[in-house]
Amino acid sequence: MINVGLLGAGRIGNVHAKSIAANADSRLVAVSDVHTAAAETLAAAYGAQARTSLDILNDPSIDAVLIATSTDTHAGLIEAAAAAGKAVLCEKPVDLSLERALACQAAVAETGKPVMIGFNRRFDPNFAAVKRALDAGEIGRGELLSITSFDPGPPPVSYIRVSGGLFRDMAIHDFDMACWMFGAAPVEVSATGTSIVDPAIGEAGDVDTAVITLRFADGRIAVIQNSRRAVYGYDQRLELLGSTGLLQAGNVLESTVHKITTAGAMSAKPEYFFLERYMKAYEAEWRAFIDAVKAGTGYPVTLQDGVNALAVAEAATLSCKTGRAVRLQDGRPVVA
Amino acid sequence: MINVGLLGAGRIGNVHAKSIAANADSRLVAVSDVHTAAAETLAAAYGAQARTSLDILNDPSIDAVLIATSTDTHAGLIEAAAAAGKAVLCEKPVDLSLERALACQAAVAETGKPVMIGFNRRFDPNFAAVKRALDAGEIGRGELLSITSFDPGPPPVSYIRVSGGLFRDMAIHDFDMACWMFGAAPVEVSATGTSIVDPAIGEAGDVDTAVITLRFADGRIAVIQNSRRAVYGYDQRLELLGSTGLLQAGNVLESTVHKITTAGAMSAKPEYFFLERYMKAYEAEWRAFIDAVKAGTGYPVTLQDGVNALAVAEAATLSCKTGRAVRLQDGRPVVA
Amino acid sequence: MINVGLLGAGRIGNVHAKSIAANADSRLVAVSDVHTAAAETLAAAYGAQARTSLDILNDPSIDAVLIATSTDTHAGLIEAAAAAGKAVLCEKPVDLSLERALACQAAVAETGKPVMIGFNRRFDPNFAAVKRALDAGEIGRGELLSITSFDPGPPPVSYIRVSGGLFRDMAIHDFDMACWMFGAAPVEVSATGTSIVDPAIGEAGDVDTAVITLRFADGRIAVIQNSRRAVYGYDQRLELLGSTGLLQAGNVLESTVHKITTAGAMSAKPEYFFLERYMKAYEAEWRAFIDAVKAGTGYPVTLQDGVNALAVAEAATLSCKTGRAVRLQDGRPVVA
Amino acid sequence: MINVGLLGAGRIGNVHAKSIAANADSRLVAVSDVHTAAAETLAAAYGAQARTSLDILNDPSIDAVLIATSTDTHAGLIEAAAAAGKAVLCEKPVDLSLERALACQAAVAETGKPVMIGFNRRFDPNFAAVKRALDAGEIGRGELLSITSFDPGPPPVSYIRVSGGLFRDMAIHDFDMACWMFGAAPVEVSATGTSIVDPAIGEAGDVDTAVITLRFADGRIAVIQNSRRAVYGYDQRLELLGSTGLLQAGNVLESTVHKITTAGAMSAKPEYFFLERYMKAYEAEWRAFIDAVKAGTGYPVTLQDGVNALAVAEAATLSCKTGRAVRLQDGRPVVA
Repeated sequence: MINVGLLGAGRIGNVHAKSIAANADSRLVAVSDVHTAAAETLAAAYGAQARTSLDILNDPSIDAVLIATSTDTHAGLIEAAAAAGKAVLCEKPVDLSLERALACQAAVAETGKPVMIGFNRRFDPNFAAVKRALDAGEIGRGELLSITSFDPGPPPVSYIRVSGGLFRDMAIHDFDMACWMFGAAPVEVSATGTSIVDPAIGEAGDVDTAVITLRFADGRIAVIQNSRRAVYGYDQRLELLGSTGLLQAGNVLESTVHKITTAGAMSAKPEYFFLERYMKAYEAEWRAFIDAVKAGTGYPVTLQDGVNALAVAEAATLSCKTGRAVRLQDGRPVVA
Repeated sequence: MINVGLLGAGRIGNVHAKSIAANADSRLVAVSDVHTAAAETLAAAYGAQARTSLDILNDPSIDAVLIATSTDTHAGLIEAAAAAGKAVLCEKPVDLSLERALACQAAVAETGKPVMIGFNRRFDPNFAAVKRALDAGEIGRGELLSITSFDPGPPPVSYIRVSGGLFRDMAIHDFDMACWMFGAAPVEVSATGTSIVDPAIGEAGDVDTAVITLRFADGRIAVIQNSRRAVYGYDQRLELLGSTGLLQAGNVLESTVHKITTAGAMSAKPEYFFLERYMKAYEAEWRAFIDAVKAGTGYPVTLQDGVNALAVAEAATLSCKTGRAVRLQDGRPVVA
Repeated sequence: MINVGLLGAGRIGNVHAKSIAANADSRLVAVSDVHTAAAETLAAAYGAQARTSLDILNDPSIDAVLIATSTDTHAGLIEAAAAAGKAVLCEKPVDLSLERALACQAAVAETGKPVMIGFNRRFDPNFAAVKRALDAGEIGRGELLSITSFDPGPPPVSYIRVSGGLFRDMAIHDFDMACWMFGAAPVEVSATGTSIVDPAIGEAGDVDTAVITLRFADGRIAVIQNSRRAVYGYDQRLELLGSTGLLQAGNVLESTVHKITTAGAMSAKPEYFFLERYMKAYEAEWRAFIDAVKAGTGYPVTLQDGVNALAVAEAATLSCKTGRAVRLQDGRPVVA
Repeated sequence: MINVGLLGAGRIGNVHAKSIAANADSRLVAVSDVHTAAAETLAAAYGAQARTSLDILNDPSIDAVLIATSTDTHAGLIEAAAAAGKAVLCEKPVDLSLERALACQAAVAETGKPVMIGFNRRFDPNFAAVKRALDAGEIGRGELLSITSFDPGPPPVSYIRVSGGLFRDMAIHDFDMACWMFGAAPVEVSATGTSIVDPAIGEAGDVDTAVITLRFADGRIAVIQNSRRAVYGYDQRLELLGSTGLLQAGNVLESTVHKITTAGAMSAKPEYFFLERYMKAYEAEWRAFIDAVKAGTGYPVTLQDGVNALAVAEAATLSCKTGRAVRLQDGRPVVA
């Protein structure tokens, strides 16, 4: 049985608490949060204790920590947890700054402890099935990957301002998806963005609609479409053209019901947002983490993956501003 | 918190135990089974006790029982549990004999306690959405209901022999579905059956492929297609033609992945069997039962519903043998 | 070049005229109709002559006739055309009376000339693809065939009265489809019908909604659902469960457009009625007829096929009235 | 009746000849081709005469010409035909050189005659339905357009060398589609390309896989994915995210047949290539041209549209080479 400390009792912390409790090999023993009341409520629901993060990291009976705090604390907590010898699963992103993330990576390297980053979409059964089919050669070599990733609606502009921007905040999942699918980081990034959904987002210095094209060393291409607003729900699809076929992963719909009237044929919308769509993915992610901890094997998503995705995000941000393709050299963006 | 005793620790008992434990308002406190070891294992997994059924029924601290034992014990346990004042959810069917089910109904009526029968498919989110849309008038009046219900493969002939036959064992779910959708019991039943999947099933006196047509008093018609073998999985669909449209509930597929090659476009198969397909339905069924117990309202599926479905099954069995439509008069089958 | 005389210049005659003209091996040279003006208009559009049917049949320069007149004249014209040595394609049904159709068959047999009956749906590319896949063994042995066949709206009651009833007028296509798919005529027919769409149809002695079950000698079953009203269009589907899989032929939709809004995901309706849905089938039917005439081979649909479908229609009519399964012995219905 | 001269009797000339003959308001009277035999064969099939292009243009009895010759002759023939006062429909592209196309446009302007360019995909019923829905406000303002356009296989490298490159030869259809959907030409073009399908294409100076992003003045974005090889057929889809919904136009499939076995659920592939997929579009295009000629109204696709698409193609070619976004100023590409 692996004893788990959960750092962060917000919305995503609550999601993870459920997965921790549902897994036969892990037990939630402690919860921390800057809002003590939140930690206490969540802890009580699962028979755990509310404690401080420091206290949790210093407790030798706690084997693993799940970091679900605010982004600006991720890198520091990763470093501290690794130094404390814990098994670590940290929510994405590692940090909003590539430099900080690289420093974190260096610090963690000294501890010799691996760290897993929570790119939960890799564990979505549909995307995972595409990856398996690709790796099994079912469409030959993958050549052109297209990811569609739309949120149901934009967050408040106050959030936008501290989010690091669409590329670091939202597209980062898609960057990781592309790197994972292709088993490599891209060598060049081009981005086009606009704030057509809400001009206030543009005034805050961000975009709300964007297309990012990634070129890989061997000529493969990935293109990502992002929008902060698809009013019908969380639109999460991908497709991959290969030398001998095409693979597509579609949306998960609210039901299989189909209604045909004189108005046409109506089917269900996609699941509304990430909690609905990716609930199974969160459970599978936790299972994968615990299985790796038990087996002592490497994690399926590494700190390097977190750094790679962030480097692409930084390159995309730069390309969107300059109108130039941005190369990634030694993991750092360079304007072409 | 409602304390629950589970009678029966077989495959379906295990499914229910999980739902009982997952529900915040119910707690599994006792499990019984003719195989004591099965009861003990299941009880241990949920911190409950293995006891005898009698012991459970006599324990005033147990509020509700879930009957998941073999079919021949259902009626007796329903009577005993109702007499003991328990809230009762019993797996379908009430019995293989309509007469025995009617006697059970009469005995239960004397206790004044309601009993819920486990027609779990009513709680499938897709069928439930069809029912809601129908009741909301989205396709006008429902006129022609078509249910497709195929198992992935036939059970052993040894099971077939004691099953009561395809109409009582398998189609009974569909009979309840038709009665529920149309809010009435049919007045006439016609059935055609064959043992084309496996002649040994025919030699055992049963059919493995059948079509049953139900006529309702006001002229509505339901048609049910059953087969014991759809090699690709559990095929569970329905569609309903109404005066202003059509409603369909499709299969739940294993994934949303689509692959197109020179061979064609390949998508996922239906979920394999009832545990995969109806897991959500079992959870929702239990939630509905517990909510009704807490609220003190009537159950969403009644003992009368169980008796009705059994009467249709008996009529279908008779029609299949005689080649005649069988009328249901006062709830009993009469050859036309 | 095959010279063709077209008997009948109504709606379906116009459809055929187009196919005759479009086929490189056939030429429309003459048109007849009881309404002389209709014949003249149609003839003019294709550079043909308006003549009487008798005149056409007696003209040795005319190789083939297409009979698209009213049903009550079919049998007589088939006999006369066969006697005149013409290649004959006649619209379904042969007649509304099985006895008359049998007499026609006997008369034609004496001429030694084959006759093709216009069961156009066999030439629908989708149903034809199902048939090919079945015959190629792609789902093993076909065991349970389900045909859904709904019209967009009922015809006037005045038409219903002279139509021969739903089973002879509408379901006859589906009876032929079942016989064709299974390569055999059924041995038993059970039908349930109702006039729920329009009570006036019931008062006229007909039904508007029906389910017909056909049993074949070796245990295979076909079930047909008919309704005179599917407000959303012409619903024409079939599916076939086999020992190693399922085949389905879906509707042809008005477009491939999909719209997703907060209201759900909307796709196109089925093509509205038979002219839209089966236009390709009519062309392919004519091509098949001309190809057979040129090659001197047998027709893909025979007079026997027309008689078989009519016998099933008569059996269904009888079963619907008596509530009993009706056997077909030596091609004639016998109440079980 | 509009008398038509067809210049070019190749594959696409044959397609158009059929549409001309099928249209009740147009008649094919003359055909020219550099290969005299090809012109003669095609002319004979439709009762027309084989003549020289010059002869056709000089014949006052010919009202309209359809230019389906090789690309390098388009601009000259457009100019000559307009000067001769003919109604003109010319296959795309106007020319491979933007400068030449602009000169053609200037020359035509002096004649005061409009010219229609054959962007046939605008007449595809599915894309046309999307355009109508967009213009009707069904998804609010269109914000992010995504076009997927894959050929089934690459042409010979010898063709690639004279094709003008993927952007002028293949993507030009998609550039027109984007301009048409959004009712405007873009202000900025970014392209990424690779020759991953066949290195020989790269050696010939072209790409075979590309992503092009178009930015419009008001912030709308279109992204186009192209590949010379989708082994499963001609993949032609688009989708458009708007402020209140999403519109998608899917592929036209070879049939509606669906087969489910233990291997999964198999449906039909897309129609193989442009002749199959766009046959209806070619017919509708011709109908639109003839209707406009008869009505004396403007054409639905103008020479300006042809020039706009070519300007985008030139910008994309430049962007792909320089790694920079290319702006379109006064209709000419300028590296940012």
